[in-house]
Amino acid sequence: MLINTQIKLAARPQGLPSPDNWRLETGPVGELPAGSVLVHNHYLSIDPAMRGYLLNRGNPAESVDVGQVMRALGAGQVIESRDRHFRPGDYVMGGANVQTYGLIPAPHLTKVDTSDLALPVYLGTLGLTGMTAYFGLLKIGRPRRGETVLISGASGAVGSVAGQLAKLLGCRTIGITSSDEKCGYVVDELGFDDCINYKAGNLRRALKKVCPEGIDVYFDNVGGDILNTALTHLRSGARIVLSGAISQYNNENPLMQGPSFYVNLILKNARMEGFVVLKYARDFPVAVRQMKQWIQEGRLTTDYSVVTGGLPAFNDALLRLFAGEKLGKLLLKVV
Amino acid sequence: MLINTQIKLAARPQGLPSPDNWRLETGPVGELPAGSVLVHNHYLSIDPAMRGYLLNRGNPAESVDVGQVMRALGAGQVIESRDRHFRPGDYVMGGANVQTYGLIPAPHLTKVDTSDLALPVYLGTLGLTGMTAYFGLLKIGRPRRGETVLISGASGAVGSVAGQLAKLLGCRTIGITSSDEKCGYVVDELGFDDCINYKAGNLRRALKKVCPEGIDVYFDNVGGDILNTALTHLRSGARIVLSGAISQYNNENPLMQGPSFYVNLILKNARMEGFVVLKYARDFPVAVRQMKQWIQEGRLTTDYSVVTGGLPAFNDALLRLFAGEKLGKLLLKVV
Repeated sequence: MLINTQIKLAARPQGLPSPDNWRLETGPVGELPAGSVLVHNHYLSIDPAMRGYLLNRGNPAESVDVGQVMRALGAGQVIESRDRHFRPGDYVMGGANVQTYGLIPAPHLTKVDTSDLALPVYLGTLGLTGMTAYFGLLKIGRPRRGETVLISGASGAVGSVAGQLAKLLGCRTIGITSSDEKCGYVVDELGFDDCINYKAGNLRRALKKVCPEGIDVYFDNVGGDILNTALTHLRSGARIVLSGAISQYNNENPLMQGPSFYVNLILKNARMEGFVVLKYARDFPVAVRQMKQWIQEGRLTTDYSVVTGGLPAFNDALLRLFAGEKLGKLLLKVV
Repeated sequence: MLINTQIKLAARPQGLPSPDNWRLETGPVGELPAGSVLVHNHYLSIDPAMRGYLLNRGNPAESVDVGQVMRALGAGQVIESRDRHFRPGDYVMGGANVQTYGLIPAPHLTKVDTSDLALPVYLGTLGLTGMTAYFGLLKIGRPRRGETVLISGASGAVGSVAGQLAKLLGCRTIGITSSDEKCGYVVDELGFDDCINYKAGNLRRALKKVCPEGIDVYFDNVGGDILNTALTHLRSGARIVLSGAISQYNNENPLMQGPSFYVNLILKNARMEGFVVLKYARDFPVAVRQMKQWIQEGRLTTDYSVVTGGLPAFNDALLRLFAGEKLGKLLLKVV
C-alpha cells in the first residue's frame, strides 16, 4: 500500500508564511476513482500565486481552506490510470498539490514529452509561468520592434522569459533586479541589453540614464515602489503589463500601496492592464510549440532553481521565493 | 484705442488658488500681427486642467509662468482680422486666455455657427470637454450595448456628456456625484439610470447595491477614493477610462494618493487607460457633427453654469470648479 505525505494548511499566515502555518500528514493514498490518475509527484511549482490561495477570499476556487492540502502545480509520473488517455510510466503535469502522490482527475493533467526537454521546463518556461510571460508581453504589452521594454523581477521565473521574448521581438530590453549578481545573470546569460539593481541607488535616476527616452512597455512582476517609479518614466503610448505584485503579497496592511503616479497614464496616453493567464488557455498549445522551438534552437534560455529536502522543505521554498533568492523558475523536488 | 484687461499669474498657488495668486492688469491691446485675429472674448472655459498649468513642470507648453497671462480656452467675436479665413463679426473659439481681448494666431481659432447653438455650447459639449467625454468613452471605454457604465463627476462638464453618450449607446448608466440635488439632476434631466451621492454613505456598499454584477466601464473624472472603490467592483474585462483626477489636483502632498486596489486589474483581466484628448484631434469634426445632431434632436442635453462678474471673478470661478458647485460646463462670462 502506498503511503502519501501531504502538507495541509494549519493556520492562515500573517505576513510571510512560517512553519507553524503547515501540518505534515502521512496516510494511505486511497482508492483511485474512475476517470482519475494516480501520479507520483517529482517537482512542485513554487509560485507567488500561492500567497493568494492563503487568503480567505470567501471563494473555494481562489482559496485553500484550513485543513486542506495546499494547492500547487506539479509534474511527475503516472503510477496507475483509470482514464484511457494516460498509462503508467507517462510523464504528466497539472494540479498536483503539495503531496507525494495525487489522485488527479484526468482533465487536470497534461502529458509531457521528457525525451527532448527535462520535466522542470514544463513547469517553467512551458508551464503557466512561461505562458504568463508570453501572453502578458504579446497580448497586453504588444511591443514593436525597436521599442524599449522594461522588466522587473527580471531574473525570476516570469521576468526572465518575458525579457528574452522582448529581445526575440527586436526590442531594447532593460531588466530590474535586486542584486548585481542577478543583473549579471540577466545581461550575460539572458541577453538583456541592460539591467538595474534597484537596491544599489536611486531607481528613478537609473531609469533616466538607461532609458533616456522613456519606456514603451513595462512588464511589472513586483508592484510597489518599482511600479510607481516606472510610471514616472513612460513614453507617450506606453503599456504597463500587470503580471504580479510580489512586493505586496505578504504586506500585512490590508491597504496595499497604490501607485500614486498613475495620473501619468493620462498625460502619456498610456495603458495599465492586468490579466489572468488562463484567459488565453485556448492559445497555450501554439505558444508552447513556439517556445519549445526557441528553446531547442538555443534562442531561449530556460533556468530553474530546485529546492531539495522534499515536502518538509515546502515552507523554506516559499520563503526563498519571496526573498527572491533564486534564478529562473523555483521548484521543490518531491522525490 | 482698445484697453485690454488681463489676469496674470502673480505666484504659484499652494493647494487651492487664492486671489493673491493673480494680478489684474490693464493696458492697450497692441498691434495686430499679420496672420492673427483680434477677438473680443465673451466666455472663458473654466477647466480642471488649469490647475496643471499652475504647476512648474519645467515645460512651457504645459505650464504658465509667473508674470504670464493665464491660459484659457474661450469663445467670442472677431473685431479685426489679418487672416483671410476670419472677418469682423465672426464668432470663434480657441486659445483666448484670461483677458478681454486676444490677438490670436489664426490657426489657434475655429469659426463657430451661433445661428443654431449658443456660443457656450461650443466651449462645452462641442468643445474639448465634450471631445473628452466622446473619445474617452468610445475609444478607451468602448462600452457595448447592455453593459454597465459608471461615471464619476456625473453632473460635471465631462461626466454629464459621457453618461448621456453611454445611454445613447444602450448601456445601463450609473452616476456618482456629491449631493442628492445633483443626483436628481443626473437622473431626471440627463436620463442616467441611477446615481449615487458618495457623501451620503458607504460608496462600496452603494455600488454593490446599484451594480450587483459589477462595472464594465468606469469613466473616472475624480481619482482618489472613488477610483479606488470602483476598482473593488469591476467585472471581468472591465475598462477604466482615466479622464481626470480633480480630487487630487489641489493636493499639497506631492505624492498623490494611489489606487491601492489596482491589483484587481490583474484578477479581473481589466484595463486602466489614460488619454490626452488632442490625440484624437483629427477626428474632432466627425464627433462634433454627431453630437450637434444629437443636441438638435433633443437626445443630448447640454447644460452650462455661468459665473458673472467678469475677469475679477476668475479666482471665484476656479474655486467653484474645484468645489463642484455647478451643473454641466462652467464658464466665466467676460462681457
